[in-house]
Amino acid sequence: MPDIIDLRSDTLTRVSKRDVEALDFAKIGDDCYGEDRYVRELEAYCAELFGKEAALFMPSGTMSNQVGLRCLAAPGDEIVTEVGYHISFFESSAVSANSGLVLNAYHSRNGVLTADEARIAIHAKARWSSLYAVPKVVAIESSINSYGGIVYPVDEMLRVRALCDEMGLSLYLDGARVLNACSHLDLSPARYARPADMLNFCFSKGVGAPFGSILAGPAHKIEAAKIFRKWQGGSLHQSGLMAGVALDKMRHWQQVTQQDNDNAAWLGRRLGEAARLKYPVETNMVFIEAADAKAAAARLAERGVLALAWKPDLLRFTCSSLVTRRELERAADIIRASL
Amino acid sequence: MPDIIDLRSDTLTRVSKRDVEALDFAKIGDDCYGEDRYVRELEAYCAELFGKEAALFMPSGTMSNQVGLRCLAAPGDEIVTEVGYHISFFESSAVSANSGLVLNAYHSRNGVLTADEARIAIHAKARWSSLYAVPKVVAIESSINSYGGIVYPVDEMLRVRALCDEMGLSLYLDGARVLNACSHLDLSPARYARPADMLNFCFSKGVGAPFGSILAGPAHKIEAAKIFRKWQGGSLHQSGLMAGVALDKMRHWQQVTQQDNDNAAWLGRRLGEAARLKYPVETNMVFIEAADAKAAAARLAERGVLALAWKPDLLRFTCSSLVTRRELERAADIIRASL
Amino acid sequence: MPDIIDLRSDTLTRVSKRDVEALDFAKIGDDCYGEDRYVRELEAYCAELFGKEAALFMPSGTMSNQVGLRCLAAPGDEIVTEVGYHISFFESSAVSANSGLVLNAYHSRNGVLTADEARIAIHAKARWSSLYAVPKVVAIESSINSYGGIVYPVDEMLRVRALCDEMGLSLYLDGARVLNACSHLDLSPARYARPADMLNFCFSKGVGAPFGSILAGPAHKIEAAKIFRKWQGGSLHQSGLMAGVALDKMRHWQQVTQQDNDNAAWLGRRLGEAARLKYPVETNMVFIEAADAKAAAARLAERGVLALAWKPDLLRFTCSSLVTRRELERAADIIRASL
Amino acid sequence: MPDIIDLRSDTLTRVSKRDVEALDFAKIGDDCYGEDRYVRELEAYCAELFGKEAALFMPSGTMSNQVGLRCLAAPGDEIVTEVGYHISFFESSAVSANSGLVLNAYHSRNGVLTADEARIAIHAKARWSSLYAVPKVVAIESSINSYGGIVYPVDEMLRVRALCDEMGLSLYLDGARVLNACSHLDLSPARYARPADMLNFCFSKGVGAPFGSILAGPAHKIEAAKIFRKWQGGSLHQSGLMAGVALDKMRHWQQVTQQDNDNAAWLGRRLGEAARLKYPVETNMVFIEAADAKAAAARLAERGVLALAWKPDLLRFTCSSLVTRRELERAADIIRASL
Repeated sequence: MPDIIDLRSDTLTRVSKRDVEALDFAKIGDDCYGEDRYVRELEAYCAELFGKEAALFMPSGTMSNQVGLRCLAAPGDEIVTEVGYHISFFESSAVSANSGLVLNAYHSRNGVLTADEARIAIHAKARWSSLYAVPKVVAIESSINSYGGIVYPVDEMLRVRALCDEMGLSLYLDGARVLNACSHLDLSPARYARPADMLNFCFSKGVGAPFGSILAGPAHKIEAAKIFRKWQGGSLHQSGLMAGVALDKMRHWQQVTQQDNDNAAWLGRRLGEAARLKYPVETNMVFIEAADAKAAAARLAERGVLALAWKPDLLRFTCSSLVTRRELERAADIIRASL
Repeated sequence: MPDIIDLRSDTLTRVSKRDVEALDFAKIGDDCYGEDRYVRELEAYCAELFGKEAALFMPSGTMSNQVGLRCLAAPGDEIVTEVGYHISFFESSAVSANSGLVLNAYHSRNGVLTADEARIAIHAKARWSSLYAVPKVVAIESSINSYGGIVYPVDEMLRVRALCDEMGLSLYLDGARVLNACSHLDLSPARYARPADMLNFCFSKGVGAPFGSILAGPAHKIEAAKIFRKWQGGSLHQSGLMAGVALDKMRHWQQVTQQDNDNAAWLGRRLGEAARLKYPVETNMVFIEAADAKAAAARLAERGVLALAWKPDLLRFTCSSLVTRRELERAADIIRASL
Repeated sequence: MPDIIDLRSDTLTRVSKRDVEALDFAKIGDDCYGEDRYVRELEAYCAELFGKEAALFMPSGTMSNQVGLRCLAAPGDEIVTEVGYHISFFESSAVSANSGLVLNAYHSRNGVLTADEARIAIHAKARWSSLYAVPKVVAIESSINSYGGIVYPVDEMLRVRALCDEMGLSLYLDGARVLNACSHLDLSPARYARPADMLNFCFSKGVGAPFGSILAGPAHKIEAAKIFRKWQGGSLHQSGLMAGVALDKMRHWQQVTQQDNDNAAWLGRRLGEAARLKYPVETNMVFIEAADAKAAAARLAERGVLALAWKPDLLRFTCSSLVTRRELERAADIIRASL
Repeated sequence: MPDIIDLRSDTLTRVSKRDVEALDFAKIGDDCYGEDRYVRELEAYCAELFGKEAALFMPSGTMSNQVGLRCLAAPGDEIVTEVGYHISFFESSAVSANSGLVLNAYHSRNGVLTADEARIAIHAKARWSSLYAVPKVVAIESSINSYGGIVYPVDEMLRVRALCDEMGLSLYLDGARVLNACSHLDLSPARYARPADMLNFCFSKGVGAPFGSILAGPAHKIEAAKIFRKWQGGSLHQSGLMAGVALDKMRHWQQVTQQDNDNAAWLGRRLGEAARLKYPVETNMVFIEAADAKAAAARLAERGVLALAWKPDLLRFTCSSLVTRRELERAADIIRASL
């Protein structure tokens, strides 16, 4: 597919032969026996990067989220979150069916679940009765996929942390694309993620590893996470092949996420001249409104540009290492002509 | 407590010695062995009253709801409902922890989850992805406790039924106080409940039985409900003592619910002259706004009138056979003087 | 049915008009509001009787068991028990489906799950791996229904307690008929139940209350049990009608259980002359072997004696206040003639 | 570790640089978008190999088992299996906590859960009562890890199939190492697995792929499995890297499993001269009894031979492509000297 410009998702970034040739295969062992040195290095690297005591390799971001919430709450407990966040939008069945947790999914004003909104969600019931589900976790997301890849603001995270402290809740950060957020803020991941008790980050997105995710948090929670990971079938044998590639990719996270963000900013400006941008472009995504998103995506595909029909009236373009700036320029022309 | 006028709840109605003296104790047997004639009569009476194939005695409305939903959906399936309805407001933990079901709890405009709103709730996700929770049930309530005891409109129920048929969903009616709704509408319960696949009705509320509820629906679902009832610990031995009282009380449901509705209408008019009614008074409840509901309830209690602080700024008065019209008049004076 | 002698179950004991006429109806209130004085008295009476900090009224023994285990263990945890005990034989679906708990159900030598056997069950896996389910509770039963109503020995309970202490487990006693065991041992319930952290006792069996059960244990666990009871639909409104009868019946538990045990001992001796007793008769049950238990039960029923076909080759006769000694003598003659 | 001879597990087989260099990286895409050609080829290859309508790539055998059982049974249903089989021995927590399923784990006579034994397990309860858990699946294993890697006999599988047909149950085969069984029987996988409705096979064991497993069965069950896989976090992005290696390895499954079986047979004969073999050696494992397995394993490790202390008194040696025949000969000498 030499002429296709694929802007559907940063999960489509591909591993190359060079990536795996660079690996030291002697370091790969059976992670179920704790013998894969790449996995252990990657976990140590991520614990340090995100400033947490411990970290655990997971096959997917969904598994990180599912296991992370299981570590922080028990059946019948309430997870306060935003209706469009991944754990609500895509994982509501899993949250209930796997762990019996209850989502209190708030409709935020602009995609950022603020501390004030979380407080309203919590206080929707007067807290007079033992009959109500007990909130145990506030779960936020950054960057926020469903709301254009916008960044969860630093100050708001501190306010949510204060709310959690006041009410005895944990703060969970679904940071599937948190490094794009850190690039935007020019802030170290450890500093940005500090208010969160646990967080998820996905290697399979902009960073470009084939798949996998990290769950980071306090050591005793990560010990519990190992059990839940096993229950869900996420303990892999030679995950080192994957971890090795991820570790190598991670060493360049700053360049890659910066470049993806810059490309999206450029694309947003170009498309914004001709279409209505649904959200401010803060990281590597551009959402534009379209009367019939599926039809629009089909028209673009005919011309060699792949986009994602996110909602019936919304198109998503995602910048990743799959697409060079030159290709992006060509794509922008095609998109503008097609609108 | 001779001088207390208790308007907190219709669940507070009491069984009397006369109620139980009227029973034929020879009919009471062990319902776990299917040998209680009162239970079987009550189940047959309710199946007929609500126009369903079969009915099952339950210890509580919560158990009817929990078991009913379990009959209509499987773990990970979505129940579309309103955020203030009992199964969402009071039972969200149970729904998730018992059965792994997911609540899609919509904020309706005025307390009645309309077919249009249910459609929006269902379509909040574009239904393009197998990742989303699959809606299986629309769960409505009538009368609607959290919204002033208003009645779910007949026409709207037919529209929701049409939506369910169109999308292959079941319709569940939490009719804990459905007979008050039928009185208001002057409609037979069978006719009103016809669009619903299954429904719950509580004997312990206005009707005045000590406790217990009925779950009615198709025979094969009621067979399944027997199993779930057993799992939850709701299979009782001599429930006939209860069923016998309930059966006797049920024979007078029309007078009782009519009287309670009339009393509430009168009280609503009286209080409406002096306070802001939060909702139209359609059944046996009156909600008035109060700056500090707990303090207001405490002040009233000192003067012998018991009300329920429903929310921080909302007082609920419920009419039941506990309170005569004469007492109600006295209560109205006290409440007005206290506002 | 004046001529029927019903030896099927002590759950068939019936409430009489006299039982309820004796009640002080002014004490009955709404237990959901904590206002039923009978329920509170019954809970206090049982906490004292069984020597526990607190106690909670439950609609059924199954609910006590389900809620009790939920208080002592979390999803994925292991309950070590005997394969024939009620929570395994009758409640295995509920244990898994309600709470995600795992039964480690041992086949004991003679129906008493000894400390040594519990240790073997626990050590069936070498405890080398975090992959194994973690045992959290040993659940015993007394008297033991599936094994002829034999009594769980006092000394063995102390040894199981020591095992639990050694391994950090809780001890749960399903004492549905524990007062029959106490009568047999001539031991106070508080003394007998002392090693158990939590226990269930059923009012609906020999004691003769219509239905209901008590769950007793530490105050903080009973607080948790209130929540789980609510989730399962076991919070009743005017349960005082029931609790009042139970409270009255409980004041005579010693005479009743002694008489039932004595009657069964007599029946065991009489039947033992003509048939093979499957188990020693220690409480109120006699099990005899029968080539085809269902056919044998049908033959007896034709002659006016009701027995329970417990297994394909096993008949159960249960003594209760339903049957006088004179009736029992007549029944014994009929059974012997029928064998 | 050049001198170490690792006989602990066939999961320790390693991927090599050559394995991945041989891949066509253009075929790797995002499997969440259905765009990975290696995954699709591997799924098609396995569906054909095992004679099933469809197949699904899974990150682990545990996930295949968990998802497979979820496809065949609902919460509260019973899975009839053997106490030592993987789904019971290692996955009991997961089975209950993920899906609310109940294990009916039988202690078989010799590790093969026969049709007669399954029938006994099912009939342990007389099936007279709706209170009992309903059996829905018989789950067998082959080769059987906990019992020395013995092969589940062909004839017995047909008898179990007949039992399943008679009682309306599904047959699930945990065939993590089923190709070793097929090699032993000299039978095609499709023919051997024919009686099973669904089966799991692990690429990560003798075949030598880094990780991953296949779940095969009827197309509509595999569609359901995709949802459950998503819930558990098992949908991966570029799993093609793994699937490509697995596909290549699978083309040589016959040589590899034959060689591993032959090596184990040889090792069994050698060790059998000096020690007591716990089980007949039918596939790639040899279990010998040891007074203190952990101490024995430690002694061997000092001499460069790694074995697994499977139970306190049992050592497991597993033959795989990690160890050549020459190394095996050296290991045999060391083991014999060490006993």
